[in-house]
Amino acid sequence: MTMPSNQIAPLLNFEMLYLIGLGLGDAKDITVKGLEVVRRCSRVYLEAYTSVLTVGKEALEEFYGRKLILADREEVEQEADNILKDADISDVAFLVVGDPLGATTHSDLILRATKLGIPYRVIHNASIMNAVGCCGLQLVNCSIINQCFYFSQLYKFGETVSIVFWTDTWRPESFFDKVKKNRQSGLHTLCLLDIKIKEQSLENLIKGRKIYDPPRYMSVNQAAQQLLEVVQNQRIRGEDPAITEETLCVGLARVGAEDQKIAAGTLQQMCTVDLGGPLHSLIITGGSLHPLEIEMLNLFSIPENSSESQSVDGLRT
Amino acid sequence: MTMPSNQIAPLLNFEMLYLIGLGLGDAKDITVKGLEVVRRCSRVYLEAYTSVLTVGKEALEEFYGRKLILADREEVEQEADNILKDADISDVAFLVVGDPLGATTHSDLILRATKLGIPYRVIHNASIMNAVGCCGLQLVNCSIINQCFYFSQLYKFGETVSIVFWTDTWRPESFFDKVKKNRQSGLHTLCLLDIKIKEQSLENLIKGRKIYDPPRYMSVNQAAQQLLEVVQNQRIRGEDPAITEETLCVGLARVGAEDQKIAAGTLQQMCTVDLGGPLHSLIITGGSLHPLEIEMLNLFSIPENSSESQSVDGLRT
Repeated sequence: MTMPSNQIAPLLNFEMLYLIGLGLGDAKDITVKGLEVVRRCSRVYLEAYTSVLTVGKEALEEFYGRKLILADREEVEQEADNILKDADISDVAFLVVGDPLGATTHSDLILRATKLGIPYRVIHNASIMNAVGCCGLQLVNCSIINQCFYFSQLYKFGETVSIVFWTDTWRPESFFDKVKKNRQSGLHTLCLLDIKIKEQSLENLIKGRKIYDPPRYMSVNQAAQQLLEVVQNQRIRGEDPAITEETLCVGLARVGAEDQKIAAGTLQQMCTVDLGGPLHSLIITGGSLHPLEIEMLNLFSIPENSSESQSVDGLRT
Repeated sequence: MTMPSNQIAPLLNFEMLYLIGLGLGDAKDITVKGLEVVRRCSRVYLEAYTSVLTVGKEALEEFYGRKLILADREEVEQEADNILKDADISDVAFLVVGDPLGATTHSDLILRATKLGIPYRVIHNASIMNAVGCCGLQLVNCSIINQCFYFSQLYKFGETVSIVFWTDTWRPESFFDKVKKNRQSGLHTLCLLDIKIKEQSLENLIKGRKIYDPPRYMSVNQAAQQLLEVVQNQRIRGEDPAITEETLCVGLARVGAEDQKIAAGTLQQMCTVDLGGPLHSLIITGGSLHPLEIEMLNLFSIPENSSESQSVDGLRT
């Protein structure tokens, strides 16, 4: 029997870097363990570019009782050593909305810490990658007696995709192959929708001016419209897009927050459904649904009195 | 613009059913919001059959300051109405290790509540489905400038599978098709490993005797051994198993707990690596790895002084 080396350092015994997930809703979605660590760290950074909570920095500061240092993308990528400064002699916390290990840059921070001999610890939390189960998708086939209770609803999700904001000149469709492949395999697709925080215009970028555009968050409406345009393009090229205007989709907004909204309906309906403020996500269902999935989605179906509405089990999935 | 109906009830305004995730480690991995709800509910159930924490019911009761009612599978499936009793006039909490919407039965509880007119609310937490990012897999191709920061590491995971305990007469191999398909698409596979809690022997089941076997949790060693047997069977049948003894895998134990262990090595090494007590999970990598992934996995590689060891970047993936 062999033992892996370099294991996680026991909590509280060393000065170290903590990567702490904040969950998805508001200040109180941090874990008790996470809050205890935040309250005793010498510096607390808030990663502010891959996601947002429904409350701002000030609300977090008030609840945590700590000043937070906003860490934007530039800071984390270019000045990681500042973040890690003295983390070997005092505790430093790096707060991330959702779970800390959802995005590339945070692995990078761990690797830099490790190279500097600074121990690290991750305090996990909910992220959209698992909380998406809130809509009732994905039950599995329960024909194997005694096994089904452990089979996760998330199993029927295929590879996750990102849908990015199109520009006049940049309209990538490559993500759509994964959607098609999932759909053809009977798997749902979770589409994470683009966010643009602290982006520079091309002009400002070229001129080296640190002037930033206002933040933008892609809505389910925008994502659905882009998807329908890809579907049209595929038809024009004589390809089978595998999804249509009538494909059953689920729009999700502010998952985990008090005012979370979920809407189940056709891709066409997703173009106009009003889900309110960010963040939004979109699920394209995989086709055949389990009866329990249909029952759950019916809780969220766009109502009959809408001109476009249909009940979920009447939908051509 | 249309508004979806049946939205989530605002927190604290109604008596309702709360489904609360406990996260993955110990008592303090509950969120602050979850703890507040637990402390004021009239009845608090602990779901005790799809997963376990590193601490027992008593430790949770002490930290929460509340008595917990153990809800086993039978209770939740057959006596859901007892759990929901009076949840329209008082708050009832249903605690689940990980995130509450990982398993079939909990959707069922939501549907029953909804039919009884009882509002519900989910308080999410980390689950193995997202916390698996702790091993450093899965960075994405960052060639799209300005987009990569939002691309999750979890994107390169394909469909998740379960590996169940084989018996003398029941040795299902069907899950292996998904592993192969993921591997052939360059996607990693998260394998959740079987747990058997409060299981009855066939004899006791037939005789209707409520005598239960001791709990069993599949280890990474057992999973790897079963996988290698499937690989052998595929070879005997002249099929290409797509993975071999040398395929790079990651074994994970007690993710999110103080004594979490991660080991990266070959599938063969996974047969003997000592990761300690439950719960275990296994990742079969998808083949080509990003340099940052390799760097992260190297933190966890089975050490050189082991007779079987190899550094990760020397592995034939």
